[in-house]
Amino acid sequence: MVNFNNLSDTSPLIEDLIKILGADKVLQGEKLTGRYEHIWTMSKSLDALAVVLPETTQEVSSILSLCNQHNQPVTMHGGLTGLVGSTVTSKHELVLSLEKMNTIIEVDKSSRTITVEAGVILESIHEELKNHDLLFPLNFGAKGSAQVGGFISTNAGGLRVFRYGMTRELVLGLEVVLADGTILSSLKKIIKDNSGYDLKQLFIGSEGTLGVVTKAVFKLVEAPRSRNSAWIAVNDFQQVIDLLKFLDAGLAGTLSGFELVWSETFEALTSSPATVKAPLAYGSPYYVLIESLGGDQMKDQQQFEALLAEALEKKLIDDAAIAYTESDLQWFWQIREDVRVLIAQCTHNQQYDVSISIPEIGNYVKETREQLMAIPEVDKVFALGHLADGNIHFSLSKTREDDALKHRVNQVIYASLKDLGGSVSAEHGIGIDKKRYLSISRTEEEIEVMRLLKKSLDPNGILNRGRILDVS
Amino acid sequence: MVNFNNLSDTSPLIEDLIKILGADKVLQGEKLTGRYEHIWTMSKSLDALAVVLPETTQEVSSILSLCNQHNQPVTMHGGLTGLVGSTVTSKHELVLSLEKMNTIIEVDKSSRTITVEAGVILESIHEELKNHDLLFPLNFGAKGSAQVGGFISTNAGGLRVFRYGMTRELVLGLEVVLADGTILSSLKKIIKDNSGYDLKQLFIGSEGTLGVVTKAVFKLVEAPRSRNSAWIAVNDFQQVIDLLKFLDAGLAGTLSGFELVWSETFEALTSSPATVKAPLAYGSPYYVLIESLGGDQMKDQQQFEALLAEALEKKLIDDAAIAYTESDLQWFWQIREDVRVLIAQCTHNQQYDVSISIPEIGNYVKETREQLMAIPEVDKVFALGHLADGNIHFSLSKTREDDALKHRVNQVIYASLKDLGGSVSAEHGIGIDKKRYLSISRTEEEIEVMRLLKKSLDPNGILNRGRILDVS
Repeated sequence: MVNFNNLSDTSPLIEDLIKILGADKVLQGEKLTGRYEHIWTMSKSLDALAVVLPETTQEVSSILSLCNQHNQPVTMHGGLTGLVGSTVTSKHELVLSLEKMNTIIEVDKSSRTITVEAGVILESIHEELKNHDLLFPLNFGAKGSAQVGGFISTNAGGLRVFRYGMTRELVLGLEVVLADGTILSSLKKIIKDNSGYDLKQLFIGSEGTLGVVTKAVFKLVEAPRSRNSAWIAVNDFQQVIDLLKFLDAGLAGTLSGFELVWSETFEALTSSPATVKAPLAYGSPYYVLIESLGGDQMKDQQQFEALLAEALEKKLIDDAAIAYTESDLQWFWQIREDVRVLIAQCTHNQQYDVSISIPEIGNYVKETREQLMAIPEVDKVFALGHLADGNIHFSLSKTREDDALKHRVNQVIYASLKDLGGSVSAEHGIGIDKKRYLSISRTEEEIEVMRLLKKSLDPNGILNRGRILDVS
Repeated sequence: MVNFNNLSDTSPLIEDLIKILGADKVLQGEKLTGRYEHIWTMSKSLDALAVVLPETTQEVSSILSLCNQHNQPVTMHGGLTGLVGSTVTSKHELVLSLEKMNTIIEVDKSSRTITVEAGVILESIHEELKNHDLLFPLNFGAKGSAQVGGFISTNAGGLRVFRYGMTRELVLGLEVVLADGTILSSLKKIIKDNSGYDLKQLFIGSEGTLGVVTKAVFKLVEAPRSRNSAWIAVNDFQQVIDLLKFLDAGLAGTLSGFELVWSETFEALTSSPATVKAPLAYGSPYYVLIESLGGDQMKDQQQFEALLAEALEKKLIDDAAIAYTESDLQWFWQIREDVRVLIAQCTHNQQYDVSISIPEIGNYVKETREQLMAIPEVDKVFALGHLADGNIHFSLSKTREDDALKHRVNQVIYASLKDLGGSVSAEHGIGIDKKRYLSISRTEEEIEVMRLLKKSLDPNGILNRGRILDVS
């Protein structure tokens, strides 16, 4: 058998991969040192057959075509910040990373689009656009590592979904490689296209199980010229809903954030080890962080203040603190965004990301918290969420960790979602960790159609095998 | 053979349909009098095997299951205002109309959702919401007849796509019946749901070829409290683009319309037989109708005026007329919306609905118009469109009508779209009439995947057979 560069495995597949990519782009054996399965396990080297690092769509196509012939499972790696176990691999899986396909191909100011390769990091898009007075509105905690391919395949949400939509709403064009190596390329810069099935929808949010995203065209918006934010204290959940409706009507199209934080969470986010203090007194049951992005700082701020004054007068709110400086804005948003502060207060942390219709949220969180706190091993329950999207995050502390306890907690959180018409995953996806709970969000018939699609587009099941669904 | 109620056909299929629905909901023979294939051919009775009028999702399921067993093609009828020939049937097709499923099931003010059956007419939704201070933003000319099932399956666009998105962006939940009668029901009121494949996307815009929509949940927005509009004259196409960017940044999230009308079209829309006069002098090459929907009439109007004054000062625009009264608003929008005025000026009218990236539009329309006017039988070319969406409508007058001429005109309009990354259909769909041009918008690989989806979900090809694609 030929021995290439001390490779630990010289199977015909690996030899063919090296022929396609060159030996330096097929990492095996000791070359996997320094590669890992998740940012939380960076001390441990990746377990995988090999990692391949293509530089072109054609190379991705050749890799998949080859793997398909060999019935070789291929697992996608992006920014490695996923929360559902999808990037954890075994030594039988080939890992495909598009990190070398990281070119921003074009910013088109007139079309207001950006065309990128799948390995581009979200923050690089934000940086690039600063020179063009344009905004790519997608924004979430992992922006410094999340790659285009990853956030498209997981249909990422984040902080401004209410105004600008999920990733799905921001994708105009997509290039995807199918399991058999077929390249589906539709990199158009148009908003409206009703010519046949909108195939890109299949690949957005399907967690890499139906195809590998290689390039994308995103819709951009003009950079906002004003930004106003406030923390607001509210006394009861119905008032939170009324406030959302009141502000949304008053701020019309400019309301871009309505983040709800329950009292215990607000206190935890603004006390040690947090380095930021609370802009409002403790004691209210609900705290809301709002943001408006508009066209004229002075006029927008006047309207923002006037609306909050009116809300106070109408007793919709208890109190409000308005951000008047850039450092106020940073302070206010750090409170909401720095969820590491919560994790630091947990012995064993577990995170959730559920979605239910807005009027159900108040009772659901109250009852779920009570049931969780009744579990002896659960000592803290933090709740916060993107209220306007009906999306609630729980961050839990448990005194110990095992699978049975995890499942017990999951059941408490997920149990009522079916009846409430909710979802076990608003943002993070199903991956491996939530497979057994998929039937809470989806009917048997829906899951059967998902299987049908998977079998049709990836008959050998090579793409992210075992993620979302098991297909026999 | 048994004879039921003078039916002209008593095949076993029809007998079974009558068993499912009762004889009064299976129209055949002379009972087809007064039914038609399109609003343009209301004098001619429908040619079809029968028309079935189910009242429940379960009945739709039974009908499709039966037809699937008999390999019986089923064609959907909705508001019958489509522009691509999909509702034209032969005597071998069974027509399925959900007109009896026309209940508005629920308006939920807190979730800001409406749940409806597929036979509900768009205007009925608008009417219903007037009592709730909520808006369903979808709005287009055929709103008085268009049904939910029709505008979902065609992913309708219209006048406010730029701000609120196409139908796709407004659908939260969907109930669909598949070709074999399987009911896929996911009528959730949630904005974010990343639990597995987003199956509803398959049925939105696939023109009834993959499933029959029976119910839907739509996202609503708070009713705007201010509306400002203006007609603007602009001197050159680059200025039109600059104006869009300028107004979009200045009006931030409140810009809801940016409709471009070419000079000849503007003159035709404001002279006899039109009953409305022009709010601006003729002579500019471009006229733009803008709209802003905001939260405070007085403040929003001041900002609207200030921005237009600034645009005038910067010489971005030649002139502007602002609507100050409700009757001004009606006048301004009637000019844009009453496209029957254009059709009335055509001998034989033909309409187009293409999409290209915004910076290409100026040259594309100029060159296409010149080439069209070089065809001896073409005597008028009107162009107008939703500029912010990159969507251009042509309305043509031809001195005579035949298929060869139609194809010749099509080729002129569609020829350059492939190179320009455009689409032969921004809104109207492919249906039967545009099938031969689908390959201009889509690659061979894309069309092959569409075929694969059709074969997987509807193996006997019973649903809207021959629409969009032919499948062997």
